[in-house]
Amino acid sequence: MAAHDKPILVFQTDFTYAEGAVSSMYGVVKSVDRELEIFDGTHYIPRYDAWSASYRLYQSLPFWPEGTIYVSVVDPGVGTPRRACVARTASGHYVVTPDNGALTHLVRHVGIVEVREIDETVNRNPNTRGTSVFHGRDLFGYCAARLASGIITYEQVGPAYPVDEIVCLPMPEPTIEDGALTGIVDIIDPNFGNAWTNIPLALFEQAGISYGDMLHLRVRHGDEPVLEADLPLCRTFGEVGKGELLAYTNELMNVSFTMNQASIVERYGIGFGGDWTVSFSPLGEYPLAAKSEAGR
Amino acid sequence: MAAHDKPILVFQTDFTYAEGAVSSMYGVVKSVDRELEIFDGTHYIPRYDAWSASYRLYQSLPFWPEGTIYVSVVDPGVGTPRRACVARTASGHYVVTPDNGALTHLVRHVGIVEVREIDETVNRNPNTRGTSVFHGRDLFGYCAARLASGIITYEQVGPAYPVDEIVCLPMPEPTIEDGALTGIVDIIDPNFGNAWTNIPLALFEQAGISYGDMLHLRVRHGDEPVLEADLPLCRTFGEVGKGELLAYTNELMNVSFTMNQASIVERYGIGFGGDWTVSFSPLGEYPLAAKSEAGR
Amino acid sequence: MAAHDKPILVFQTDFTYAEGAVSSMYGVVKSVDRELEIFDGTHYIPRYDAWSASYRLYQSLPFWPEGTIYVSVVDPGVGTPRRACVARTASGHYVVTPDNGALTHLVRHVGIVEVREIDETVNRNPNTRGTSVFHGRDLFGYCAARLASGIITYEQVGPAYPVDEIVCLPMPEPTIEDGALTGIVDIIDPNFGNAWTNIPLALFEQAGISYGDMLHLRVRHGDEPVLEADLPLCRTFGEVGKGELLAYTNELMNVSFTMNQASIVERYGIGFGGDWTVSFSPLGEYPLAAKSEAGR
Repeated sequence: MAAHDKPILVFQTDFTYAEGAVSSMYGVVKSVDRELEIFDGTHYIPRYDAWSASYRLYQSLPFWPEGTIYVSVVDPGVGTPRRACVARTASGHYVVTPDNGALTHLVRHVGIVEVREIDETVNRNPNTRGTSVFHGRDLFGYCAARLASGIITYEQVGPAYPVDEIVCLPMPEPTIEDGALTGIVDIIDPNFGNAWTNIPLALFEQAGISYGDMLHLRVRHGDEPVLEADLPLCRTFGEVGKGELLAYTNELMNVSFTMNQASIVERYGIGFGGDWTVSFSPLGEYPLAAKSEAGR
Repeated sequence: MAAHDKPILVFQTDFTYAEGAVSSMYGVVKSVDRELEIFDGTHYIPRYDAWSASYRLYQSLPFWPEGTIYVSVVDPGVGTPRRACVARTASGHYVVTPDNGALTHLVRHVGIVEVREIDETVNRNPNTRGTSVFHGRDLFGYCAARLASGIITYEQVGPAYPVDEIVCLPMPEPTIEDGALTGIVDIIDPNFGNAWTNIPLALFEQAGISYGDMLHLRVRHGDEPVLEADLPLCRTFGEVGKGELLAYTNELMNVSFTMNQASIVERYGIGFGGDWTVSFSPLGEYPLAAKSEAGR
Repeated sequence: MAAHDKPILVFQTDFTYAEGAVSSMYGVVKSVDRELEIFDGTHYIPRYDAWSASYRLYQSLPFWPEGTIYVSVVDPGVGTPRRACVARTASGHYVVTPDNGALTHLVRHVGIVEVREIDETVNRNPNTRGTSVFHGRDLFGYCAARLASGIITYEQVGPAYPVDEIVCLPMPEPTIEDGALTGIVDIIDPNFGNAWTNIPLALFEQAGISYGDMLHLRVRHGDEPVLEADLPLCRTFGEVGKGELLAYTNELMNVSFTMNQASIVERYGIGFGGDWTVSFSPLGEYPLAAKSEAGR
């Protein structure tokens, strides 16, 4: 097989680049097969957070070529009896990961058609048998490299198990009721400070809401109100003044909310996950005249 | 074309690696052409800061092989009518960027010989039409990949426009008057805490100043004095004691100032840009005896 | 030579990715030879810290294929008369680095069989003669690229010097006395907050200590006590409750200590280096019943 016929490996972890773990993990991959191509997904997943791992797979994996093998190592249960698996998605990608919730969004949004438990007796690095704490290097990365290299077939990863046994974190569906839309803050963008909901633009359109409409937003964490505000649904950030609130459609076509060139996440302390609920109610058209006066 | 005949792509953004954006952007590039080679410039440009984007291009691009395509995505105006362009430099490199000031330093120091506006009707990813907020993935990265791959020629990027229409941020020229040199803090190094001026060593030499001379430094932010100190012009940091101030010639042959193994930026709160002025006046030769007594 | 016959280059520095230095350094490498393959080790070595550079080499280098050239640029003495060298390890790897202590752990744990001082008259970038402050780009990276490319042989790096002249930082050996084990905190993992000692599991086994045993831990910084606690020696984190202390064998088969899913480093302000001593005394078997009651 020529080098470019072998699948790309993309890695995401919660290791950060602060120490030498990523380097030794990649070194093992290149020791298995020098020709393999490796990319950083992100190594800045919040520590131990399978939900974020799950979201980042959903956000990034579909944009890689079919056949790409995504390795996700967020593994607080390393060395305990959680399953180590390789999932095959409906989009033709592979995900190597502990089966601890990291597949939740892919199950929901992309579809997993097959999943296999890694057989550690053959797909674990024989040179590092003594340690039980670094499966990124010794198990997930090593197994992924063997699969990408063609040393093993997908079937040789290990025995298949039922797809409906995949561990999924609780994730309420977005709903529409009396013209109001309800969902969750699915994730935040910690850099730009945007909050991304799980409510697709399509559901807004179904509710008769379109760009230029004003919305009433409520954000709750469990029972506690966190933010309540009126904001317009915009195509892009620059349609409101700097520091003003807006809703917009993010890059995955879900409605999100933020402030233009400022962080709504920091300003209001917004988090994410199944217990961060959001609702949007329509208020009518955004007064364009007022917007122009705001002076952009 | 063999893989190594295709230009390298280097990306710089203000995305950070905290979430999945870089990964999905790179996935699109590899989906356009598996053979393309991608490097990280930096993804830690300060948010929305076209000046920093401009400086980092000037600092890094000239060291890459001729033909390299540098993609710079610092784009607070995403989705608004700023131009998306591909510039060709006098050094034979290409820069794919919003035309929002990010080319300022290259215009001044390297030269832009041609610039074309990206024709979104052909060079924007047709699979992600609905969203207007992620041009790094959907427009800049996608167009750059097509150009690197040879799918389009430079002419097919889109229509050329006059080079003198490129948006340039205000940037005063360094001057020499009565033996004193005046310029700006062009950028800081946020890691080591050095402050880099835009005054070339050549101008110091023209003023009769050479290594070993003492200088009187004044730093002002607008009208406000920030720092005033005497320091020697050194070849390298170790010529003064730890924590002592020095001026030196940075890697782009401009005179800079810092403290040996400490951050002058943090210590005195120094910023950068057109309103951070610096002046150096010569004071005579640095007393080497005193230096030895300082005890290194 | 085909591209994949040329050694891989791995870079570690204290530059961070906050500015353009890594990019210009890599650009020089690709300008020497377009075919060379470059990986990030880590660019987040603590500033000026040769000890950390040394540890990260020990942690990562052995996992890369034989022949790999590791470039380590942590260089507070840049431009002063410390040696710039290329070391050849007993494992068949090369390390390009200032000879300032960065080879300490490799000397002790892997072995250096040959070391050569870089001849700057031939292996320094002739295009950047004027500046003395960026040897990562102009000397170490440039020389490493020439070596990887086959432009120079290892002998052509420059003259060999005696291996026992390599600068080594003071590093006490771990000892066993009256059943108690003494060593140092060799490094911390700044992300997960684990503290890694230099005491191998083998020494614990020699002292008759095995997994499941309770240990009494003492940590001192110089003469000052920092932490004193009882904790079990575990195979992995999940054997104790969240937030509880444990000792475990890290990925290099040295005994380490931490808290399950929490940072012992932050909690107790633990540092690392030759003056951070640790001792472990055996206390008997860990009460498994009590553990079960703890309720995982």
